[in-house]
Amino acid sequence: MNDLPVTPLVRSLPSSVPFVGPETLERRRGGPFRARLGANENGFGPAPSVVAAMAAAAAQSWKYCDPENHDLKQAIAAHLGVAPENVVVGEGIDGLFGYTVRMFVEPGIAVATSQGAYPTFNFHVAGYGGRLVTVPYANDREDPQALADLARREKARLVFFANPDNPMGSWWPAADVTRLISGLPDGAVLCLDEAYGEFAPEGTLPPLDVSDPRVIRFRTFSKAYGLAGLRVAYAVGEKDVIKSFDKVRNHFGVNKLAQGAAVAALADQRYLHEVIGKVKEARERLSAIARDNGLKPLPSATNFVTIDCGRDGAFARRVLEELARRDVFVRMPGVPPLDRCIRISAGPASELDYLASVLPDSLKAARGS
Amino acid sequence: MNDLPVTPLVRSLPSSVPFVGPETLERRRGGPFRARLGANENGFGPAPSVVAAMAAAAAQSWKYCDPENHDLKQAIAAHLGVAPENVVVGEGIDGLFGYTVRMFVEPGIAVATSQGAYPTFNFHVAGYGGRLVTVPYANDREDPQALADLARREKARLVFFANPDNPMGSWWPAADVTRLISGLPDGAVLCLDEAYGEFAPEGTLPPLDVSDPRVIRFRTFSKAYGLAGLRVAYAVGEKDVIKSFDKVRNHFGVNKLAQGAAVAALADQRYLHEVIGKVKEARERLSAIARDNGLKPLPSATNFVTIDCGRDGAFARRVLEELARRDVFVRMPGVPPLDRCIRISAGPASELDYLASVLPDSLKAARGS
Repeated sequence: MNDLPVTPLVRSLPSSVPFVGPETLERRRGGPFRARLGANENGFGPAPSVVAAMAAAAAQSWKYCDPENHDLKQAIAAHLGVAPENVVVGEGIDGLFGYTVRMFVEPGIAVATSQGAYPTFNFHVAGYGGRLVTVPYANDREDPQALADLARREKARLVFFANPDNPMGSWWPAADVTRLISGLPDGAVLCLDEAYGEFAPEGTLPPLDVSDPRVIRFRTFSKAYGLAGLRVAYAVGEKDVIKSFDKVRNHFGVNKLAQGAAVAALADQRYLHEVIGKVKEARERLSAIARDNGLKPLPSATNFVTIDCGRDGAFARRVLEELARRDVFVRMPGVPPLDRCIRISAGPASELDYLASVLPDSLKAARGS
Repeated sequence: MNDLPVTPLVRSLPSSVPFVGPETLERRRGGPFRARLGANENGFGPAPSVVAAMAAAAAQSWKYCDPENHDLKQAIAAHLGVAPENVVVGEGIDGLFGYTVRMFVEPGIAVATSQGAYPTFNFHVAGYGGRLVTVPYANDREDPQALADLARREKARLVFFANPDNPMGSWWPAADVTRLISGLPDGAVLCLDEAYGEFAPEGTLPPLDVSDPRVIRFRTFSKAYGLAGLRVAYAVGEKDVIKSFDKVRNHFGVNKLAQGAAVAALADQRYLHEVIGKVKEARERLSAIARDNGLKPLPSATNFVTIDCGRDGAFARRVLEELARRDVFVRMPGVPPLDRCIRISAGPASELDYLASVLPDSLKAARGS
């Protein structure tokens, strides 16, 4: 390994997979989960219209995808009321974060985020040699004021902020996000992750301002649209910022079926609203299940509910493991004090019923062990 | 634009799309092509078994893809007789080239290739600040001896060699590739692009030697397997080299449907062999069409035939434009003297019939203009 002629930066990086997928866990366990509620997937699935579009398009997979993502960019732009020049499509928000970090970060450049926020963003910052600086969450929410202060103090070039937030499910009203933007130092760009934006209450997402090169908004078809497996997301921003993605992106990175499915998904807003309603019900049910078991569900503007298990990280991990032993896949935040919680995704009633049936024993076992 | 706080390297890069897709041309023309023979796609399409697998899997697209690509890596490894640890799956060969260049290249590092070889590889080299050095093709083939000499002279860290070659369709026997590998300087790694390997005569691909960290082999499901739109390819190499991809790759980059389709495609070798037979027939037909029109088809070990139009690049471009005017999409090499040729992909008989019907007039118009 040490003899490979890789760059010093690459040599310094660990080989890792940022998330252990449920398939990996299933292979280790030797069997499938009964409730797949850990990855904030949308268990209500994509719209039937979208599934039909994919099935119809499958035979055309011999054609390369459109490297310009033209039709999808047009559809997104029309949906948002911006120009196609303000939209770039990529291989999931993860892929777009990779390109963004590559564009702005080189060794030594500071990047500001919250301690315990999205790990894949951090993976990319490390991957390009950035210097990650963090502030803690405050009361289970990201702390925009502290983040802006940090960015100024450290001369951060990129600032990560998710609204609504993962892994806590919390959110800030648009006015606070706008204040964060105003408080950024000169030369800083905000990566505003709105992956869960469709689930948030009215007034959470600031109006789009594509004249502002200091903000890049990230949205995805993985969550509300139920297309996590297709790897298609987009960023919205000022047109010169967006055009810069063409300098570095894998132009043929977004699968042809994914492009078509995303266009079909945008066209079926009725289904989207149905799903958002189902997710809201599931969140309420998850909160009730938590309370029934003496746990404290946190408020959520996402498709998951983060549940305070009332003790430390070791205890929450035991709860998670006991749930896994009972065929329930959930995840938990990675850093204290957030890691006193487990994070359960919204899903169909049958899976939540099953969760409700095994949670009492899981807690008992976790307390006893 | 100049005010964006991007890195100096990114500032220096052009915003570009390496290939103009046929969809873009169709939008400009205002209508579809009748013969799509320009992108070395496989117009015979994927196997019916693969299309059925995709259609059946579409409703499961709400699940994230397996970031380890486990099942596909197992299937590829079994197919090739190597270990899964010798295989990395990525978003097309383009995506894997991006990761490879990132791993080995930093500003100023020399990378050796042939003048007129695959442009997307060069796009990535530029994108990471590499210094591209080239040797010309010799007699319409890459020149492995000159390439090895160049690599030694320039202390190249990466060397690109495609066998069979695109855009010329030429190839070298395995022994010559092995000689190229032996002739590489210390600290150089060969990127051996075998995208067209399935079409090549027996004895073209050197035996896999996964003990050698100096060679990374790239193969794809885009060509012989007819899945260009799905963006799934793989690299085979020594296990520490392969493990290094985990340092930099977008772990969730390969679409779930693509992973499943590729597994299904590998399982249907009967269909693969049928397609390879059809491609061979189509190559012969394309060569006959060329000769019937007084043009010189070059020998090909790929799914396309490169045709010497007998004059200079300007003339070949006129032929290409006249074909496009008659609804035929083809492409041509980018640099002299290769650009005296046009490059036509194998495709169904109906498309080749149509090509044959319009080529005489296209040539006449090109000569007259």
